[in-house]
Amino acid sequence: MNQTLRRDADAIVSAAISAVQPDAAVIRVLKGRRFPGRVLLVAAGKAAWQMAKTAADCLGDWLDRGVVITKYDHVKGEIPRCVCVEAGHPVPDENSFRGTEQALGLVEGLKETDTVLFLLSGGGSALFEKPLVEGAELQDITSQLLASGADIVEMNTIRKRLSAVKGGRFAQLCAPARVLTIVLSDIIGDPLDMIASGPACPDTSTCNQALDIARRYGLRLSDRAWTLLGKETPKTLDNVTTFVSGSVKELCAAAGKACEHLGYEPVLLTDCLCCQAREAGSMLASVAKTHAGGGRAKAFIAGGETVVRLIGKGLGGRNQEIALAAAVGIDGLADAAVFSVGSDGTDGPTDAAGGYADGDTAAQLRSRGIAIDAVLKDNDAYHALEKIGGLIITGATGTNVNDVAVVLIRG
Amino acid sequence: MNQTLRRDADAIVSAAISAVQPDAAVIRVLKGRRFPGRVLLVAAGKAAWQMAKTAADCLGDWLDRGVVITKYDHVKGEIPRCVCVEAGHPVPDENSFRGTEQALGLVEGLKETDTVLFLLSGGGSALFEKPLVEGAELQDITSQLLASGADIVEMNTIRKRLSAVKGGRFAQLCAPARVLTIVLSDIIGDPLDMIASGPACPDTSTCNQALDIARRYGLRLSDRAWTLLGKETPKTLDNVTTFVSGSVKELCAAAGKACEHLGYEPVLLTDCLCCQAREAGSMLASVAKTHAGGGRAKAFIAGGETVVRLIGKGLGGRNQEIALAAAVGIDGLADAAVFSVGSDGTDGPTDAAGGYADGDTAAQLRSRGIAIDAVLKDNDAYHALEKIGGLIITGATGTNVNDVAVVLIRG
Repeated sequence: MNQTLRRDADAIVSAAISAVQPDAAVIRVLKGRRFPGRVLLVAAGKAAWQMAKTAADCLGDWLDRGVVITKYDHVKGEIPRCVCVEAGHPVPDENSFRGTEQALGLVEGLKETDTVLFLLSGGGSALFEKPLVEGAELQDITSQLLASGADIVEMNTIRKRLSAVKGGRFAQLCAPARVLTIVLSDIIGDPLDMIASGPACPDTSTCNQALDIARRYGLRLSDRAWTLLGKETPKTLDNVTTFVSGSVKELCAAAGKACEHLGYEPVLLTDCLCCQAREAGSMLASVAKTHAGGGRAKAFIAGGETVVRLIGKGLGGRNQEIALAAAVGIDGLADAAVFSVGSDGTDGPTDAAGGYADGDTAAQLRSRGIAIDAVLKDNDAYHALEKIGGLIITGATGTNVNDVAVVLIRG
Repeated sequence: MNQTLRRDADAIVSAAISAVQPDAAVIRVLKGRRFPGRVLLVAAGKAAWQMAKTAADCLGDWLDRGVVITKYDHVKGEIPRCVCVEAGHPVPDENSFRGTEQALGLVEGLKETDTVLFLLSGGGSALFEKPLVEGAELQDITSQLLASGADIVEMNTIRKRLSAVKGGRFAQLCAPARVLTIVLSDIIGDPLDMIASGPACPDTSTCNQALDIARRYGLRLSDRAWTLLGKETPKTLDNVTTFVSGSVKELCAAAGKACEHLGYEPVLLTDCLCCQAREAGSMLASVAKTHAGGGRAKAFIAGGETVVRLIGKGLGGRNQEIALAAAVGIDGLADAAVFSVGSDGTDGPTDAAGGYADGDTAAQLRSRGIAIDAVLKDNDAYHALEKIGGLIITGATGTNVNDVAVVLIRG
């Protein structure tokens, strides 16, 4: 293993993940910001507690009251003037509904000078919800939609209309107060209407589309549900300002900065990678081969979230597959490495955040009688990388904004 | 379809293919070059006639005599002082052996001041051959190797030793004359010992490896063949100068120049792309999405040769699959296109060189009731692209240096 490249890789991973911590995302938006009146805080998602804690510190006396809804075991202590609720995820439970109800109470009867600080992170869809039909019917409709083959956009078109807070309705309830939304996004491309089904985002889908979908798939609905599908969601919201302050874009930008700091010229390839992990590894290796030995230290950065074709029974994750697949292409190359990590510190069902490979990796595996192709066919990257010190282990990072892969070339 | 982007794509394809014409590759090396004595010309490969014709024009009176060996129907007329032979490809025939014998006669008894100009292009392996065992045994050994699961490097390690001209032996026969090799490469990464099995390239494989492979796979060989495997190939050749003057590198460079000429800042991603076509398309679309709308006209260039997973029964080729797969990712993007072409003008078993897609492509297909995912599953990119003018048709180009894909962003 090339120790210099490995040390650089670890430094880049560390810096990139620091930059997308919930704290950092909140501070970026709130630092030095002033408000015309009271600030009401509503936070929902897996990172809600961390975001709210930081916001409370930033806001000081601006903060009037707050409600924080996060997953079980995610509340790490008291937050001044805030109520913290732990609730069900990925399936909402009574606590989700109770917490959401408290948040709605908070934003009732606000004035124009008030501000609702809405902190949203992954998991918000289950944690922040007030269904307009009975829980049992909601579950039944979801099952019908899944069985019908409806796509995610069609499912959301229906579900937004069965919720009191989704599809922009939460922001509508906050009016005339302003809503300042800070989003930590775990969905590629940051589609605001998809993140937690867009409580503070104008809805682009229409009633007609919803009714159309219900009829096309022959959904069995109560009269109440049919009526709800006919009720329009807000198409414009003039009281909302949204900052996607933590996302794979920031992850890539921070990785790029860290590369630059270490003397590599950073080149952003993409921040919305979504192809197969193994093929992404091959392509990144091709990039490495072309630029290695060119006399310039370069770093090519690709953020996003690849997919794994599960064909084997091994242990691994998409980031580990990227690194291992790349090892084949950069076999024997001096001064080139490819590594990839998940920003949450968890890659697949493993304790690793991702994997690292350089020009020595394939030979190291060969000398142990390990054939990379066979390992990839068995989706067993973890055990192969483990044997040669190719795992990247960070532990749980407290954030989740997809993955970043980097090609490092020392010139 | 975005007519401006389509027009630019066609101009880039045309310029890139012009730059890798056999004529251009030969002229780049020979222009202004002087020789100490006579020049003997040996040309072998699918582009041999074109390369030899151009060389004869460049050399004028330097040219003493020449032998040109190419595929049937590839001789387009007389070349002064040269004998042109048409022969079997991809399976060598008696004409291949006869032509090679004539070439060997030409380079016999040369002086130090003589130069052998050796023009090599794809197909040279079959067209330039003098087997040291009977044709029937050579064929039998090849079949045994294929059945054994030997890889291409192992196959070549054996085959080089059964040939009088491969593995550097041709250059050895030319000594003490100098050998000036001009290569038009159709193999990614230009491994000189693989192109036509390296007649003028020092061999890196050894007798021991050859004997080892024969024993490991239990090859049944004649005594003569066993003896040949024990005879070493040249490990150094001090009389050879090689120029890879036409390859996917030049194709990429020319595409880049053409992009620059049209106002796009060119960025070379790779010149050795080798992943799955469909996934390459997805990744190039991700690059487009990330950089589109950034206010700068850019072109990302990826040369190489992708592979197609044949799962359907449709009509298409790897370049058409790249474009069609990319269409999904760039759906709705203004001012971005992805296109890909084979430099020989033939993509898969079709009359198209490749495919073009922009932000309108997916919608154009939708409006015709065509689902891209289903088309890709059926490997039927040709018929889909044909319906919306997305094919790139150049006709046979007379050259073959792999493929080039380009992401165009108008800023």
